Amino acid sequence: MIFLFTDFGAADIYVGQVKAVLAELAPEEAVIDLLHEAPAFNVKAAAHVLAALAEGVPREGVIMAVVDPGVGGGRDAVVVRAEGKYFVGPDNGLLSVVASRAARKTVWSIKWRPRKLARSFHGRDLFAPIAAAIASGAFPEGRLERKPRLKANFGAEDLPQVIYVDHYGNAMTGLRAGGLPRGGRLVVDGRWIARARVFSEVPPGEAFWYENSIGLAEIAANSASAAAKLGLTVGTAIGFSS
Amino acid sequence: MIFLFTDFGAADIYVGQVKAVLAELAPEEAVIDLLHEAPAFNVKAAAHVLAALAEGVPREGVIMAVVDPGVGGGRDAVVVRAEGKYFVGPDNGLLSVVASRAARKTVWSIKWRPRKLARSFHGRDLFAPIAAAIASGAFPEGRLERKPRLKANFGAEDLPQVIYVDHYGNAMTGLRAGGLPRGGRLVVDGRWIARARVFSEVPPGEAFWYENSIGLAEIAANSASAAAKLGLTVGTAIGFSS
Amino acid sequence: MIFLFTDFGAADIYVGQVKAVLAELAPEEAVIDLLHEAPAFNVKAAAHVLAALAEGVPREGVIMAVVDPGVGGGRDAVVVRAEGKYFVGPDNGLLSVVASRAARKTVWSIKWRPRKLARSFHGRDLFAPIAAAIASGAFPEGRLERKPRLKANFGAEDLPQVIYVDHYGNAMTGLRAGGLPRGGRLVVDGRWIARARVFSEVPPGEAFWYENSIGLAEIAANSASAAAKLGLTVGTAIGFSS
Repeated sequence: MIFLFTDFGAADIYVGQVKAVLAELAPEEAVIDLLHEAPAFNVKAAAHVLAALAEGVPREGVIMAVVDPGVGGGRDAVVVRAEGKYFVGPDNGLLSVVASRAARKTVWSIKWRPRKLARSFHGRDLFAPIAAAIASGAFPEGRLERKPRLKANFGAEDLPQVIYVDHYGNAMTGLRAGGLPRGGRLVVDGRWIARARVFSEVPPGEAFWYENSIGLAEIAANSASAAAKLGLTVGTAIGFSS
Repeated sequence: MIFLFTDFGAADIYVGQVKAVLAELAPEEAVIDLLHEAPAFNVKAAAHVLAALAEGVPREGVIMAVVDPGVGGGRDAVVVRAEGKYFVGPDNGLLSVVASRAARKTVWSIKWRPRKLARSFHGRDLFAPIAAAIASGAFPEGRLERKPRLKANFGAEDLPQVIYVDHYGNAMTGLRAGGLPRGGRLVVDGRWIARARVFSEVPPGEAFWYENSIGLAEIAANSASAAAKLGLTVGTAIGFSS
Repeated sequence: MIFLFTDFGAADIYVGQVKAVLAELAPEEAVIDLLHEAPAFNVKAAAHVLAALAEGVPREGVIMAVVDPGVGGGRDAVVVRAEGKYFVGPDNGLLSVVASRAARKTVWSIKWRPRKLARSFHGRDLFAPIAAAIASGAFPEGRLERKPRLKANFGAEDLPQVIYVDHYGNAMTGLRAGGLPRGGRLVVDGRWIARARVFSEVPPGEAFWYENSIGLAEIAANSASAAAKLGLTVGTAIGFSS
């Protein structure tokens, strides 16, 4: 299976072009859209969303991850193998949270360049062919070169910020809920937010936080938009108080 | 074939996770996105959209339908077989319009629980595995238990409201056009709206109603947004005058 | 492979219904979403976006293209073979830019009508079955009739307008970059815009133009929305000065 994680936009012209390449080069593989609305100009937030979503990807899964405002510039293109999964994307920090948290990882630089390489669309021309080759079981060693580590590295630590706001208005944070004390509260802009187990446990409209379905502390409101209510956007600082 | 009808958002992180489960458990099945923008906090309107869209699903099709603001609370999880199609989702009324209109139906409660069940994402952890099993031809009787009827039931009658607004600004109503007299007019907020056969029959910008492609009375405007023009949103009351 | 290019909306109820038909009639074919947010009420702009995207479709690919405000009216339904690719859609100009630029083309009128044909949704009921038949290798000659040429024709020339704005706020023009002198500037509303090679070459927030990944001159800004900055929408006139 090939998983896509990008800021290409779910409704735009880019994802289809990537899928056309994958359908041609890896016709047997299922292609799953993890997210195409990753924070476009915030690679660090995107790296934390990716790390959380990648938890659910099975071993041997291939994740093409592209949030790449520096495309066409000097950043390297890489493959990372971490916890048995493959990640293909730019060396701009996007893959570094996953890599930093992995007990075992290997990093390669992509040395191969296709005959036709659009400067603004490495996702289609460079990363998709590499992802297709790996998913098809033909690891493209000849096109890669081992490198000791990623150049851009955000580290393994949690990020005390809003990293993604979903279409319900729920605000995901870069804090993994498993590491937070049960009775603790989140703090946003001086407001304290208590924990609840499920949406139906709190009155309609009231904000709470809970462990979401990918393991992160998330601020939500029952039948309402927590983001609108509290003014949360990607990058909003989040505190924690036990 | 597996059909998805949800309020998960077409551009969000949820649909991909469901599809990853389906691709793993039912790799041979085509998965079709009917709608992921069902009215999120209006289960009744969503139930009527589902009933109209399900008409076009072939017999033996499996529809996973999830609009579930009470997820993690006390509502039951069910399978309904109606007119030869299978519906998998919450027992909160969402499946009840389809079920009420079917001449023959069977209802099961889902007794099985997966080892890992996120309280906020039964779509991924509970409903998708059941839908995959049914679609694969292995009806999961051991995980189900017959129950006499759905607990939450909106009934079979049409709903005289706007139930969905599409991206053109066309407003679908819960009135099935087949049951309305040909010469009749819809009434919104005291305004009378006449019927037309096709968009090109009325002057640009003018509102009319017509039988849409899934059999419902729909308010539209030629090359313009009827919803913006008339202030229509999900829940707006619609009258009819013959 | 079957490629879809429509104004049906990526998040709406229409694409799924088309895919259900394709999955039933051409189950072996991969279906690729090129774009479902083509300019809905601007067939000419859409025709130029289609021409650019179709460049990347492989020979023998089948493109179902539907931007069809006159659906249900008098316009013809057609199949065009151009440069070895098949296009299926309305004869309202949408296919005419591709056809005009092709050295070799053949045009057929679709004479067949399905038993059930929704007046407002020829995409599902008429075009999808024809596209499925062609893609499956059974060219449906019995349902078609040769015609000498398209009736609505926008011609082969470039269109000096914004034809599409993507979700980053980049504004694609109908000018093919290959035909423009390297040192030239675009002119919008009296403002001159210089060329750059890649996003990272200009300071954040500054507007520039470049050859985009599908060969068109595109106005962009580094880490910002050029469309918002310059007030660009589909139809905005674009000048060029060498």
